[in-house]
Amino acid sequence: MPVDLLLKGTLVNVHTGRLEKDSAVAIDDGEIVALKEREADRVIESEYIAPGLIDAHMHVESSMVTLPRYGEAVLPKGVTSVIHDPHEIANVLGESGVRSVIEDAKATPLKARFTVPSSVPATHLQDNGATLGPEEVESLLGEDSVVALGEVMDIPGVEQGADTVHAKISAAREKGLTVDGHMPQVRGDTLQEVSRYLDNDHESITLEEARAKADVGLRLYLREGSSSRNVADLAPIAEDVDTRYLSLCTDDRDVLDIIEEGGVDAAYRKAVENGIDPVTAVQMGSINTAESYGLPFGRVTPGAPADLVLLEDLESWDVDHVVVDGTVDPTSSITEYPETALETDTVKAPAVDATDLALEAPSGDGPVDVRVIDSLGGLQTARMEATVQARDGWLHADTEADVLPISVIERHSGELDVGTGFVHGLGLERGAIGSTIAHDAHNLVVAGTTYEAQAKVANHLREIDGGIAAYDPETETLTALSLPAAGLIADRPLDEVAEQFEAVEATAREIGVEQEAGLMELAFLPLEVIPEYRITNNGLVDVTEMAYVDVVK
Amino acid sequence: MPVDLLLKGTLVNVHTGRLEKDSAVAIDDGEIVALKEREADRVIESEYIAPGLIDAHMHVESSMVTLPRYGEAVLPKGVTSVIHDPHEIANVLGESGVRSVIEDAKATPLKARFTVPSSVPATHLQDNGATLGPEEVESLLGEDSVVALGEVMDIPGVEQGADTVHAKISAAREKGLTVDGHMPQVRGDTLQEVSRYLDNDHESITLEEARAKADVGLRLYLREGSSSRNVADLAPIAEDVDTRYLSLCTDDRDVLDIIEEGGVDAAYRKAVENGIDPVTAVQMGSINTAESYGLPFGRVTPGAPADLVLLEDLESWDVDHVVVDGTVDPTSSITEYPETALETDTVKAPAVDATDLALEAPSGDGPVDVRVIDSLGGLQTARMEATVQARDGWLHADTEADVLPISVIERHSGELDVGTGFVHGLGLERGAIGSTIAHDAHNLVVAGTTYEAQAKVANHLREIDGGIAAYDPETETLTALSLPAAGLIADRPLDEVAEQFEAVEATAREIGVEQEAGLMELAFLPLEVIPEYRITNNGLVDVTEMAYVDVVK
Repeated sequence: MPVDLLLKGTLVNVHTGRLEKDSAVAIDDGEIVALKEREADRVIESEYIAPGLIDAHMHVESSMVTLPRYGEAVLPKGVTSVIHDPHEIANVLGESGVRSVIEDAKATPLKARFTVPSSVPATHLQDNGATLGPEEVESLLGEDSVVALGEVMDIPGVEQGADTVHAKISAAREKGLTVDGHMPQVRGDTLQEVSRYLDNDHESITLEEARAKADVGLRLYLREGSSSRNVADLAPIAEDVDTRYLSLCTDDRDVLDIIEEGGVDAAYRKAVENGIDPVTAVQMGSINTAESYGLPFGRVTPGAPADLVLLEDLESWDVDHVVVDGTVDPTSSITEYPETALETDTVKAPAVDATDLALEAPSGDGPVDVRVIDSLGGLQTARMEATVQARDGWLHADTEADVLPISVIERHSGELDVGTGFVHGLGLERGAIGSTIAHDAHNLVVAGTTYEAQAKVANHLREIDGGIAAYDPETETLTALSLPAAGLIADRPLDEVAEQFEAVEATAREIGVEQEAGLMELAFLPLEVIPEYRITNNGLVDVTEMAYVDVVK
Repeated sequence: MPVDLLLKGTLVNVHTGRLEKDSAVAIDDGEIVALKEREADRVIESEYIAPGLIDAHMHVESSMVTLPRYGEAVLPKGVTSVIHDPHEIANVLGESGVRSVIEDAKATPLKARFTVPSSVPATHLQDNGATLGPEEVESLLGEDSVVALGEVMDIPGVEQGADTVHAKISAAREKGLTVDGHMPQVRGDTLQEVSRYLDNDHESITLEEARAKADVGLRLYLREGSSSRNVADLAPIAEDVDTRYLSLCTDDRDVLDIIEEGGVDAAYRKAVENGIDPVTAVQMGSINTAESYGLPFGRVTPGAPADLVLLEDLESWDVDHVVVDGTVDPTSSITEYPETALETDTVKAPAVDATDLALEAPSGDGPVDVRVIDSLGGLQTARMEATVQARDGWLHADTEADVLPISVIERHSGELDVGTGFVHGLGLERGAIGSTIAHDAHNLVVAGTTYEAQAKVANHLREIDGGIAAYDPETETLTALSLPAAGLIADRPLDEVAEQFEAVEATAREIGVEQEAGLMELAFLPLEVIPEYRITNNGLVDVTEMAYVDVVK
């Protein structure tokens, strides 16, 4: 009996760590049955045969599409699996949202495995859509496609033995699952202590930081995201430690970068460009990650699922064909995906008008000293002070000084609940920009030169069930990208989303948004865990103090 | 609060694969809590700190003692864990025997983990004590300390899809456990096919054989046993493949070798002597094996159990102290072990006399042509023919030609059931030798120059509940080593067993046993799976034909 498929070429044997010339991989019934020539119904020759790449840690929300649409985009690039942490969706929809993502994944040949978000909500200073407590986490950890507890961010809680986070860690351990860490700049005694409980980290940005984490036995995931690109800096670690505990991941990769550079294949290329041996880099993108999570794929041996990539060139990862479970180029024959299981009616805030957003003047008209979020770019903010004018009982923007109102409208409960402050650094000269991607609680955030423009954008986002929008009152243009699934992602092809995202960006630039990633900066201004000032539906937060502060001094 | 213990020295960091000078390992409550200096109740300095060694595959029966006594012998050598396959005990006592071994292991600080024997009985040509069918195997696989299905020997069954062996493999897979292989000289298409189902192999004797197995993704265990010593030949493989899939094991190591050379520490030394980098060799003896079976120990990282070895010298593995779960030199304070849980009344055969063993003459007195097992040494046999004399109705030994009767007395059922044939090559000039270690069915095997001498040895072994014995009629000396637990092992210190074993060997040499390992050769003459002739309680077996043959031609 001939087998279904025979691949021929130089094999990247990730098990022996060697290139094997003139190899053959025989595939039958979706499985690799021999690394030998066999009579076959179909034969494909290429220069190289490698295992499909696994993205060790990613949030599909960063790409603003559902998993099937993400798969459609990255499978042809040789990415056959992702370890997905649905952290943002969980903040909006909780346990049921995570289950919907797992359900969605069934429609794509991309092998998505999941980590259960461990830190939802981020804090109790802002109202998000749901809480994943130890009970919900434990329930989700029982799902077949769940491989780990998602990146544990509560490092002080881990170090000090806090009950909630340790209950979640124990639940994962009892099921024999991995516990992902999130340890930016964690060092010294804290690193020693938390490494007792956590298995890996993807937050290193310097070689020194990475080496210290390797020394205590953590697996290191080298990240090549959109905002954080660390592979070039970290690549020399491959000379310095046993590479079996190194993996590649994207973490957060936006739609434009996916289209231009790819998914975790971009991390592979960056690794090779920076001196990592291609076979080692393939191991980092496949078997190492498979071992981190106990996955059956990510290897090329008899008995393994036939998840393979045929390459014209290894160093540049120039893909000829992709095979998943024995199917060649599996996305090419899919013309339609089932509708997403994610809820698409999640922007529940009532319609607003300018007065719902406006900050009341403390007394009569005239100058008022206010606290201002200084948006520095790179997701950073600083404390700032400024003087704005009170007029008609409200505090107004000082557009010339780029001090503008910013509001967070709670969108989960259906009640009107708004927090407003001021922001500097967005650069708007007129109009407003808004987003229902608003980390981590994902309320509706909107900033503008007038409360009227803000309200217009907010109401439009409400009507389209969420997304990102920019409004230019001069041309009466309101450009929006609709992201109705959880108010975070779209159930549409990646390139359509990219195109519309670029249209919104163009309008934003038109009205003065200066920062390159201005809309993304806006989305992080409500994240009350990054210093120093952030805005929530409950008002302005001083993150260092973890306390609300008054806008008016 | 000071920690319990602080170790200082150069750390063999098996995670990074590097030696780290001036390291410290802080231990509290049995666990490694930091790789940093800490105030401590006790501080021990040494040249090197390494993880305790794990023997990746061994049968404690080969050392003829219980696990606690084995631990007593090897723990001081830095062996802190063994993966034990109780294959021989299972052949005598079945499921309950395996459970007894697991029970016994609780009395030793040695971390014994178990594989469930997959091939009991070896064949149906001989009557052993028990069968481990798919049901018994599945039940045992559920034990906490079980980590794998034991070495699968039925390679034709695996290749051809036989139900029984595949049911056992599936049961292991469903529990997420490893499946150990046993693939001597398996190659080509058979290797491709069976590597779909099996995870590792410890039977390679040539580099070429080992490399072929590595290519298909099998983990390789380099074996340094007593009869099979393969590490020197296989060491160059470490230059040729990713060493993370290489481990060290002993498989079968006799009591004298344990005392003189050690356990798996002897394999480590042999690896280093043959050019493997010491850090790599330590990885092969610790973390690699831990990963093969998903063990929590075998690593030196915060959160891992404190199983460590302090060494004066790394290359020679010169042990200062051993730490298990934070306890320093754990065997030193144990003065007594609880009685073994293994049954000690397992030699159930009735007493025999010469006529019970004797082969009947086909007709009157005179020469008779017979088939003879030619014992070649090295566990090998060949087919041979000879002429013996019939006298008084029985066939008798031709001592001059070294053609002697050999009998297998079934010892499990309590019924008298004897098979007798002839053997050449043992060299006895008078008397008899016997053993209740008689692979794999472990009946009572006895060979001698007269049926009377054979019966005397058999009856003595019966009285002492099993063991090994030699009888010299000239001096009326009957020397025996008593092995009452399952008729295979003793619940006594290793050096006492060694001493008594040497006494039996001395008597055997006295009466002419020529082969260096003559008593061990005897123990393998009943093993009906090694070509060409073997003796069973049901008669002579031609192994190539897998059929009984008549002794008289």
